[in-house]
Amino acid sequence: MAGALEQIGEWWSLLIVRECTLGTTRFDDFQQRLGIARNVLTTRLNTLLEHGVLVKVVAEGSERRTEYRLTEKGEALYPIIVGLMQWGDEWCSSRKPIRLVEDSTGKPVEPVSLRVGPRTLGLRDVRLEAGEGATARTAEIIDARNKAILGK
Amino acid sequence: MAGALEQIGEWWSLLIVRECTLGTTRFDDFQQRLGIARNVLTTRLNTLLEHGVLVKVVAEGSERRTEYRLTEKGEALYPIIVGLMQWGDEWCSSRKPIRLVEDSTGKPVEPVSLRVGPRTLGLRDVRLEAGEGATARTAEIIDARNKAILGK
Repeated sequence: MAGALEQIGEWWSLLIVRECTLGTTRFDDFQQRLGIARNVLTTRLNTLLEHGVLVKVVAEGSERRTEYRLTEKGEALYPIIVGLMQWGDEWCSSRKPIRLVEDSTGKPVEPVSLRVGPRTLGLRDVRLEAGEGATARTAEIIDARNKAILGK
Repeated sequence: MAGALEQIGEWWSLLIVRECTLGTTRFDDFQQRLGIARNVLTTRLNTLLEHGVLVKVVAEGSERRTEYRLTEKGEALYPIIVGLMQWGDEWCSSRKPIRLVEDSTGKPVEPVSLRVGPRTLGLRDVRLEAGEGATARTAEIIDARNKAILGK
């Protein structure tokens, strides 16, 4: 997640990505809808462009304007954005403002969760193991986590 | 997600929650592992306590020290934290440092995704609909999003 953090930067960046998933593409629209300082927005957009989360395109048509669009890498954040929305709906608000459904069937999108086949897992159902990129430090963190959370 | 944002505050808060999922409970350990200024950490911890994401407990045993622990509401953020980790592993790093498995079976935890039954959905498979908490403004956002992303 440190990697993800560096790439996304901070909350403003995730909110910008969220705005993109809502169809916002223009600087002024991001600025207005997020109520974010223009210089902060510029910095965030540039970071997201540098990291390939967004791409800058010139819109078709007579009025040739710049648009910011999600890349495949950016769209891969959608489950996280939806998960945050669902978390907010479940824990922070009384009545859900937005419902997500599968476009082709109208069936409700399920809550974002940790799964193994049909099973939904919580914090204590998960064990960490060292991956091929694990360092000695990672191994320490993994051991400490499994001891603290799983008691082993 | 605005609700979620207010509650989590910003990145530091999500990193604090992540540290909790790694078994960190003590102020000094958060401070050291996050390399965060003590005053910022204090502010963030208090925000998370106020919003019921964390709870402060006095540890058992001779050395009676304060510990910060995730509430059920806080643990409900785990899929988002794992999703960010998985995103970072897939898009930002070459070799995964950590593998998540189901403790009871050793089976790998699946990528966090949007699901309807067996189907995984992307941004363009999802349609937004007004929930019971939708305002006129929400309805505008929903319409604009579905037009922009689904072309209808």
